[in-house]
Amino acid sequence: MPAGVIEAAAERLTALRRLLGGLDLDAAVISRPAHMRYFSGFKLSRGEEATSGHSGTLFVTADEQLILADARYIEQAQAETPTWELVTTSRTLAEELSELLGSRDVLHCGLEAESLTHADWSDIAQLAPGSELHRIDEELAALRVIKDEREIELIARACALGDRCFQYLLGVLRPGMSERELAWELESFLRANGSEGLAFDPIVLAGPRASMPHGRPSDARIEPGNVLLLDFGCQVDGYRSDMTRTVFVGEPDDELRGLYATVQAAQQAAIDVVQPGVTGSAVDAAAREVIAAAGHGDAFGHGLGHGIGLETHEAPVLRRYAQPLQVGMVFSLEPGIYLPGRTGIRIEDIVALEASGPRLLTTSPRGALVIG
Amino acid sequence: MPAGVIEAAAERLTALRRLLGGLDLDAAVISRPAHMRYFSGFKLSRGEEATSGHSGTLFVTADEQLILADARYIEQAQAETPTWELVTTSRTLAEELSELLGSRDVLHCGLEAESLTHADWSDIAQLAPGSELHRIDEELAALRVIKDEREIELIARACALGDRCFQYLLGVLRPGMSERELAWELESFLRANGSEGLAFDPIVLAGPRASMPHGRPSDARIEPGNVLLLDFGCQVDGYRSDMTRTVFVGEPDDELRGLYATVQAAQQAAIDVVQPGVTGSAVDAAAREVIAAAGHGDAFGHGLGHGIGLETHEAPVLRRYAQPLQVGMVFSLEPGIYLPGRTGIRIEDIVALEASGPRLLTTSPRGALVIG
Repeated sequence: MPAGVIEAAAERLTALRRLLGGLDLDAAVISRPAHMRYFSGFKLSRGEEATSGHSGTLFVTADEQLILADARYIEQAQAETPTWELVTTSRTLAEELSELLGSRDVLHCGLEAESLTHADWSDIAQLAPGSELHRIDEELAALRVIKDEREIELIARACALGDRCFQYLLGVLRPGMSERELAWELESFLRANGSEGLAFDPIVLAGPRASMPHGRPSDARIEPGNVLLLDFGCQVDGYRSDMTRTVFVGEPDDELRGLYATVQAAQQAAIDVVQPGVTGSAVDAAAREVIAAAGHGDAFGHGLGHGIGLETHEAPVLRRYAQPLQVGMVFSLEPGIYLPGRTGIRIEDIVALEASGPRLLTTSPRGALVIG
Repeated sequence: MPAGVIEAAAERLTALRRLLGGLDLDAAVISRPAHMRYFSGFKLSRGEEATSGHSGTLFVTADEQLILADARYIEQAQAETPTWELVTTSRTLAEELSELLGSRDVLHCGLEAESLTHADWSDIAQLAPGSELHRIDEELAALRVIKDEREIELIARACALGDRCFQYLLGVLRPGMSERELAWELESFLRANGSEGLAFDPIVLAGPRASMPHGRPSDARIEPGNVLLLDFGCQVDGYRSDMTRTVFVGEPDDELRGLYATVQAAQQAAIDVVQPGVTGSAVDAAAREVIAAAGHGDAFGHGLGHGIGLETHEAPVLRRYAQPLQVGMVFSLEPGIYLPGRTGIRIEDIVALEASGPRLLTTSPRGALVIG
C-alpha cells in the first residue's frame, strides 16, 4: 500500500476509537462492507458472500483491532490488512462475538443496526447478555461523510470514466438497438476501461419506459422520437460514480423540450444555491420549487440527491439533511420529471463541495442533446 | 405471463397462506428479493435499491395481497404483478407497515429476521406495539426448497449455459493471460449468450492463489505449471447456476494429480451416497471422509454443498441439514482441498434429486484436464 493510504487508514482507526470514547463504548463490531473497507482496507466484493452469511467482521476496542473471517476469506484478509490481527472463524457470528465480548469484559458495544440482520442482532444479544448493544450507524456514516483529497480524486476518476462512457455511447447508439444491447455496450466499455465493476445495474430506458426511475433495460427498441434515459456508475478503487443523461432520439416536440428545460433549470437552481453552510433540505427545495412552479410537483417522486463514496447511496441524503452541508461532502444533484406511460427526464451530476462552492466531478454537457 | 407461471404463482400464494394458518399468524411481511419474486413475480434486480432502502415489500393476509413500493418502482410492480394490489409508499417501511398492521388488527405477524435489518425490525416493533412479531425465515425457505418442474428446467438451462461457457473458456485460454482477462471473457460469454446477470462475481484463480476459496480475479498471469480454478454461475429467468472446475495449465506433478484424484473421489462418494431419504449431513460426511483419509481433513474448510434456485446459496445447506433429502431438491456438491501458498483444487456440480437418485445438471467432464 502507498504510504498515504496507510496513514489514512491509521487516522480512520483513530477517529473510530475517538468515537467509541465519546459514546462510552468499549468496542465496535463492524460488518458493512463499505465500513470494513474504509477502516481496514479489507475488500469484500459483491460475490457469493452476499448470500452466504458472514465473510468478514471487524472487532475494535481501545487497544485491539481484529478481523474475523472464515476459512474462505482469511488468506485475502491477511494480504489486505497487514496491521490487523486475524481470527479464523468457524461458528456463527453471534457465537464468535459472544466469546470476544465476554473475554474482553465489554459492557457497551456499538453495532450497525442498519446492516446487521435482526436475526444476528438478537442472537448476539441472547448469547452475550453481559454486553449492552447500541446502534452506531449514524455515527459511522458521519465519520465517512467528509471525503479526504484521495477519496475525492478517486470519485473524480470514476466520474471521468463515466463521462467517457457517455461519449462512447453517443457514438455507438443507433435507432433500432434494444435497451439491453446499449446497456451491454455501456458495461463492456466501463469494464474494458478500468472500472472494477459497476456501481449498480445500469438503467437504460427508451420512450415511455423512461418514466420508471429505476427500471431495468429490456428488449424494447430505441426508436426515433424516443427519449433515452441513461443512468449508470462505475467504481475506481471502491469509489463510485453515478450520472444520468436523458437524450432525444430525433427532434423532440415542444412539450418534451419544455420538460427538459424545466429539469435542467431545477438542477441549475440547486447548483446555484449549494454552498457550505446551506442545508441539504434547502438545496432539495430549491430544485423542487422550479419543478412545482412548472406544474409538475407531483411528477418528481424522489429526493434531489444522495452522498456517494464507497457506497453509491450514502450520507448526506439531501432531502432529509437539515444540517449545514460541509466542505468535502460529495453528492448527486438529480431532479427528474416522470409522466407514467408518456416519458421521463432526469439529469444527474456529482458535485464535491469546496469552500468556494460546488465542483462538478461529472462534466458531460447538461443541455438537451438530439441524436440522429 | 404463460399460464403455467400464473398457476404456479397462485399455488405458492396458497401455500404461503396455509403456512400462516398453521403458525396462527394473521399476516406476513416479505421483502427478501428472492421471496418477493417467488410469491409475486416482482423482480427487483441487484441495483441501486441495494443501497437505498426499501424498494418493495409484500404484505399478505388471509384475504389480501399487497405490494408496497415507492414511486421509483411502482410502475414496474404494476406490470409484473397483475394480481396484487399496489400501495405507493413515501414513508419508512416501519411507518407504512405499522399503519397496515393497525388497520387490519394483526395480532401476530411473520417477518424475515434473516433479511430485515435490526433497525427496521425494532422500528416496526416500536410503531406497531399491538402486533407480535415472529421469525418465519426457516418456514419460508422450506416452502422454496422443493423445486417444481419449471424451476428445475430453468436451473438446468442456467447450468447448460455454464457448461457451454466452460468449453468456450478452454478454447480462448492462453498461458500469459491474466485472471482478470479470463474473468472478463467468462462474463462476456455468459451475457452475450442469454444470462440475465451473473449469479455472483466469478472466481478465476491461478497457481497458489487458488487456495483462496473465494478469492477475486487479479492481474496475476496464468502460467504453465499453474492450476487454474474457475467458479462461476449465471442466471436464467432468475434461477442460478454454479459450477467449479480446476484445470492444469501444463502437465501437473504427481502431488497435484494426487490431490485432484482425492477431490474427485470425494465428490464421487457424495454422488454415490446421495438419495432421497439420506440426510444432507451424511452426504457431506461421505465426501469429507475421503479427503480426511487422504490426510487433508483440515484443508477442506467449507461445507460440501448448498441449495440453489432464485438465490445462489439457499436451503438445504448439506453439512447442517440433518433431515432427509427429498425429491425436487437442487444443490451443489463441491469438495475442495486448499493448501495456502501452494494450491487449491475444487470440483463443483449441481444435482437435482430425483426418485432414482441425483441427476447432474452440470455435465462438463469432471476428470483432470490438462491445457496447453
